[in-house]
Amino acid sequence: MLSQADRAHAELKAALGHLLSSGGKRIRPAVSLLTGRMFGANPDRLVTLGAAIELLHTATLVHDDFIDGSLMRRGIATLNAQWSPAATILTGDFIFARAAKLAAETDSVAVMHLFAETLATIVNGEITQMFTRNGTASRPEYEQRIYAKTASMFVLATGAAAILSPVDERVMERARSFGYEIGMAFQIVDDVLDFTGEQGTIGKPVASDLRQGLVTLPTLVYHDLNPDDPDLASVLNGNRRDGGAIDRLVANIRQSGAIQQSMEIADSHIQRAMDILEEMPDNPERGALQELAGYIVQRSL
Amino acid sequence: MLSQADRAHAELKAALGHLLSSGGKRIRPAVSLLTGRMFGANPDRLVTLGAAIELLHTATLVHDDFIDGSLMRRGIATLNAQWSPAATILTGDFIFARAAKLAAETDSVAVMHLFAETLATIVNGEITQMFTRNGTASRPEYEQRIYAKTASMFVLATGAAAILSPVDERVMERARSFGYEIGMAFQIVDDVLDFTGEQGTIGKPVASDLRQGLVTLPTLVYHDLNPDDPDLASVLNGNRRDGGAIDRLVANIRQSGAIQQSMEIADSHIQRAMDILEEMPDNPERGALQELAGYIVQRSL
Repeated sequence: MLSQADRAHAELKAALGHLLSSGGKRIRPAVSLLTGRMFGANPDRLVTLGAAIELLHTATLVHDDFIDGSLMRRGIATLNAQWSPAATILTGDFIFARAAKLAAETDSVAVMHLFAETLATIVNGEITQMFTRNGTASRPEYEQRIYAKTASMFVLATGAAAILSPVDERVMERARSFGYEIGMAFQIVDDVLDFTGEQGTIGKPVASDLRQGLVTLPTLVYHDLNPDDPDLASVLNGNRRDGGAIDRLVANIRQSGAIQQSMEIADSHIQRAMDILEEMPDNPERGALQELAGYIVQRSL
Repeated sequence: MLSQADRAHAELKAALGHLLSSGGKRIRPAVSLLTGRMFGANPDRLVTLGAAIELLHTATLVHDDFIDGSLMRRGIATLNAQWSPAATILTGDFIFARAAKLAAETDSVAVMHLFAETLATIVNGEITQMFTRNGTASRPEYEQRIYAKTASMFVLATGAAAILSPVDERVMERARSFGYEIGMAFQIVDDVLDFTGEQGTIGKPVASDLRQGLVTLPTLVYHDLNPDDPDLASVLNGNRRDGGAIDRLVANIRQSGAIQQSMEIADSHIQRAMDILEEMPDNPERGALQELAGYIVQRSL
């Protein structure tokens, strides 16, 4: 990933180095590598694919942090915290370009297709979210949103790895479904952690999404359990000035069964992912994917 | 191109419609289509390629206009003049994604490679320009800059069309050279027009580049002719507050032989492009490319 800026301007090289130095979980390339190795794909092509996916993810984060005005990510300063808008946007564009180049280096037109479609899905999801913020959300809308935001990239990770593997179309379809299930679970757990985490641990105020008008699964489940809560109606109507209503609502959601029920929904995604893995070749990579899927829901505890 | 937003959010669809409504010369896809048809490529794939190239160009313009704070382009309002930074950046990203998808639909890994490399070249060029503005420019630096900014996309237009055509590697190389020569000429003429155009016609002040600290060919040639001009030294040293010095310098450059010499350099690129066309199949498309190459230098008159 670092070498992708070798022939670029020194500032660009430094920016990429800064972004990659923070590490992150790198769960998307891990899923991609393990899926491909489980199926017996060429390791070199998988590494190229994994780097393409992680750089695509990195590029979207650069633009997202600029758009949201976020100053910190993964414990270090974001690019937009240090640089001009121009330099930040162009660095994101450069990383997109290098991700696309790496995707092309897998030598698979089908991978390139999936890669480009995934980027379009992610960006369209962000634009849809931007123009509908503060509207009353429904479960289908929420599912569509987290698919676009998170699960689509996991589908890319597993689907592209399968494309590079000696497997038939039916297995490819199962691989994409596996990526979908763990991706959905991953984002649901993130959304639960936004409610249950301590401010010091997650680095932002509890229920930061809801405070910004973004309704996630715990709130939707709480709405089903308590449809007549006046604080909920007030917050859903976009009344964000009433801090008391939001604080009461957040406390009530945390104490309600909504957290538990949301985690059960995440668990059901992971269970379907585990069922798919049962059909797959029994080898160490499959075992690692089972561990990884389990980790996705464990990290909330 | 329009249909690329068919399944996207309504606002995104409207934005793409707005951007495409202004038309523009569409010289890049014209060059690509004519080059491919001259070589006998499949017309459907060429149309896909042409749309990919024009959308890539459009996406870079969306981000450039945001970065430069430009409010008008091609006689209509830019996206950033009407929308938030977030919506503008994401629309640019979406158009990149659709351009990449169309490039993948040419079903050629080599085209995808060239496409991704071109995007990286363009963005790296912009970042280099941003971090070196106000430095003393040299002819090699200028050539590198206009290659990255403009000629690289013409190389993509002709090179990718050749990849999709039944021609050998030697002819592909000649096609890329043809794109390089007309692309360099195209930008040099643009840079000359920035000096010679009337403010009403080009829609911005005469010598707007130089006023922003950007040194182009006419200034470089003038520097060779008048190395000791104190106004030139002042402006090259980044002294943009002295409006009198800039106005005197611009008037002197306009009256000097620098305009004529710059046009001769553009002409020499077009001459090399014409020589390459002489080697190509003698058919109506070649005739159209000859006309198009001639137009590039004629439009300054």
